[in-house]
Amino acid sequence: MSKSVHSLAAGISHSFYALFSILILISLPCLSIQARADVTKKVYNAEETTLSNGMQVVVISNHRAPVVSHMVWYKVGAADEPQGDGISGTAHFLEHLMFKGTKAIPPGEFSKIIRSWGGEDNAFTSWDYTAYFQSIAKDKLPNVMALEADRMINLSLPARDIELERDVIIEERRMRIDNDPQSLFAEQVRAVLFSSTNYAVPIIGWHDEMPKLKREHVLDYYQTWYTPKNAILVVSGDVTMRDVKPMAEKFYGIIPSHDVPSHIRPITPDFPAPVTLKFVSQDLHQPVFLQAWRAPSYLMNKREAFALDVLMEALSGGASTELYQSLVVKRKIATDISLSFEGDSRGEGSIWLSAVPAPNVTLEELQKAIHDKFIDLVASGLTPISVEKAKTRLIDSEIYARDSVMGPAMVVGQSLSYGLTLEEIETRPAQIEAVTLDDANAVLKIYLDPLSPKHFPVIGLMMPQGSGKTTTTNKKAQ
Amino acid sequence: MSKSVHSLAAGISHSFYALFSILILISLPCLSIQARADVTKKVYNAEETTLSNGMQVVVISNHRAPVVSHMVWYKVGAADEPQGDGISGTAHFLEHLMFKGTKAIPPGEFSKIIRSWGGEDNAFTSWDYTAYFQSIAKDKLPNVMALEADRMINLSLPARDIELERDVIIEERRMRIDNDPQSLFAEQVRAVLFSSTNYAVPIIGWHDEMPKLKREHVLDYYQTWYTPKNAILVVSGDVTMRDVKPMAEKFYGIIPSHDVPSHIRPITPDFPAPVTLKFVSQDLHQPVFLQAWRAPSYLMNKREAFALDVLMEALSGGASTELYQSLVVKRKIATDISLSFEGDSRGEGSIWLSAVPAPNVTLEELQKAIHDKFIDLVASGLTPISVEKAKTRLIDSEIYARDSVMGPAMVVGQSLSYGLTLEEIETRPAQIEAVTLDDANAVLKIYLDPLSPKHFPVIGLMMPQGSGKTTTTNKKAQ
Repeated sequence: MSKSVHSLAAGISHSFYALFSILILISLPCLSIQARADVTKKVYNAEETTLSNGMQVVVISNHRAPVVSHMVWYKVGAADEPQGDGISGTAHFLEHLMFKGTKAIPPGEFSKIIRSWGGEDNAFTSWDYTAYFQSIAKDKLPNVMALEADRMINLSLPARDIELERDVIIEERRMRIDNDPQSLFAEQVRAVLFSSTNYAVPIIGWHDEMPKLKREHVLDYYQTWYTPKNAILVVSGDVTMRDVKPMAEKFYGIIPSHDVPSHIRPITPDFPAPVTLKFVSQDLHQPVFLQAWRAPSYLMNKREAFALDVLMEALSGGASTELYQSLVVKRKIATDISLSFEGDSRGEGSIWLSAVPAPNVTLEELQKAIHDKFIDLVASGLTPISVEKAKTRLIDSEIYARDSVMGPAMVVGQSLSYGLTLEEIETRPAQIEAVTLDDANAVLKIYLDPLSPKHFPVIGLMMPQGSGKTTTTNKKAQ
Repeated sequence: MSKSVHSLAAGISHSFYALFSILILISLPCLSIQARADVTKKVYNAEETTLSNGMQVVVISNHRAPVVSHMVWYKVGAADEPQGDGISGTAHFLEHLMFKGTKAIPPGEFSKIIRSWGGEDNAFTSWDYTAYFQSIAKDKLPNVMALEADRMINLSLPARDIELERDVIIEERRMRIDNDPQSLFAEQVRAVLFSSTNYAVPIIGWHDEMPKLKREHVLDYYQTWYTPKNAILVVSGDVTMRDVKPMAEKFYGIIPSHDVPSHIRPITPDFPAPVTLKFVSQDLHQPVFLQAWRAPSYLMNKREAFALDVLMEALSGGASTELYQSLVVKRKIATDISLSFEGDSRGEGSIWLSAVPAPNVTLEELQKAIHDKFIDLVASGLTPISVEKAKTRLIDSEIYARDSVMGPAMVVGQSLSYGLTLEEIETRPAQIEAVTLDDANAVLKIYLDPLSPKHFPVIGLMMPQGSGKTTTTNKKAQ
């Protein structure tokens, strides 16, 4: 349950859930090799080039099977939409409408054609990027490039399909957010956490603002941001740059490119008080304690971000780590607890803690126990062995991410999209290796000290209705 | 103390505090006439016309002394600034820079000239409007018009003064907000209350965003919004329209006018949970309980807004009313309590409650008492006599507002600026008179029912540091 809150907070909005499993898979530490892998090697050995029109191309070779993943990443997302105009969800709406045809391809045919070739395709939108991908036999690569390049420049956006598809995304919101109390609450927590910034607005759009989405908003966004200079082609699988480059020049390189505006990512103002949101709903089945803090992203402060990675893993990277052992196993005050760091963004990152109280433990008691535990942790610091073990697990998981076709394209595409360089992505193991015990203790003290955090947390208390407290519900909008 | 929080929340940012007293004065119920005044009469008998270039002119005659108040109201404020660009405070910065000269008037000379003529001048900025005014002998009216019209079109914005004045507004923020814990906290309460809308941003700008204000932002805002079509001239005092119109045509009517963009006022999304902010500071001298709800403005829902006016007055319009009597006099749980409605805005309005606990009463106990009191009130409804008394006081205060030179120009200019018509302003007594007991009880139930409010409140707990609780402070930004 807490995983669901966290996933939503991490916030990728896409058409099918399947993608989550990919993301979760590649971020899980799966191996337990004791000797640490060689961190001096590049992870992906990706090849990189730039087309004549400025489009970036990355190839990650993997010759185990004659298949490829073909992805186009646009360096633009929901956070680049115009703000404060009472309209939201343009980036994600455009993602849907990218399947509604061009002069050459009728509405809805794109995915049918991919399937007829034995492939699969999908797309997803986040705050900082939007990606379209196909997994397919490698001999079809020129064909999918032709299709993808076509919709980069020739999108039709027929009025009728816009009307119909707006109903689809409104229904998508109804199912995934409005009818899911945890998602609805996570949306509010985010809005408070990233108050007064572009990250406070949900990717899919606010309930009352989505119906106002019009063709002009989507068209303007498409014409402004969808251009080769602002896109990255990532191909992974049974190909090399020598295969890909000529094809990419042929299909993408001929598209005229234009400059795009700069990406603006305001920083949340520093507020003087911590905030608590108390959510009571009859649709909740168990109480959950949630706490979120603002934190630097990899792009803002690489050193702190990697130290936060190690800190999270040391405290909460499995059942043998400190938080779980202390609060779940020994004190039995929680049945689950997890801590995670979200640093993959162009603007600020965040830290999320979620915990489920044990039966007969109130959320307030759990909150107090977690508060006290963090005071102890800040005072004592992490143990050297926990940090070393965490680094081993993280490095293994980085290297393990190499072993699939789609996974590497996801990791590389995402990180390039929000602003990292390929060199930075390739050398993540070395950067994790470089984190010291002091580094990890420093970020613990800076960001998670309950008595003096750099930014006050947002605390969410989720309670099933009728669990003994006076409850309050709000009236439906009139 | 609670008054200060409330005043800041109401949020007019201007150079000198004097103006607050005017506003407070004209909104206070001062008379206790028992027989209700004639509500069918217009309050101001203002005259209204439009210049050839579209500029609105209103004259409110008052012949008691040979003086005038000359005001130019621009129908634009901080909420019209570009949002999400990481820059805030443009509207207020421009207000300052309007004193920095034109081709004809050197920087800083404007106010000196007014003073040399025996007059006074100032200006203020809100979310929805920006106003410039001079109080002066009536024979100087053409002179001040010439000066004011000059800076409507000929502002210099010299680079050096922009640099210097930015330091002035940053210092203004430091003094009035950053060094005033209540103001700092009120800013956060507003940001949460009006989350994801233009009203969430402070007029003066966020601390870290003000240093980024540049000439281009101010110039663009000035050229976009400062134009006769978007301005209202309000002259009150010893003049009639027959005097004013020819002068206004001469000075303002010759300025070329252009269309302005529409004013966008997104509505705050409906969130599923109430929010509590707990502010602990060593700079606080007494605990304060604060609660704020979103509400309709006069422009959004006139009927409910007037009912809210009557409700507030019936519950909290002086020491004899229900809230004060019940919680301060009888139960002695609070030493002060006040409730107010802010409906003067183009977008949403708000309701603010503030209370100071009696010695030895905790904020939580006070919160519970207020919660229970509102449950009782919703169940019992208001008494007919309290509503009738409230209406009498409100109508008297509306009519009393007529009795000054500056006051009427303030009320009329403000209301016209955010979108009311002169007719609506003139007939406020009749609209208050029309509020029934049922109307007042209806808005009580819709907006303030603790068990089922239309919008969840934002609750602020302000506590002096060291008052017995574990305290938490946040680190200075690094």
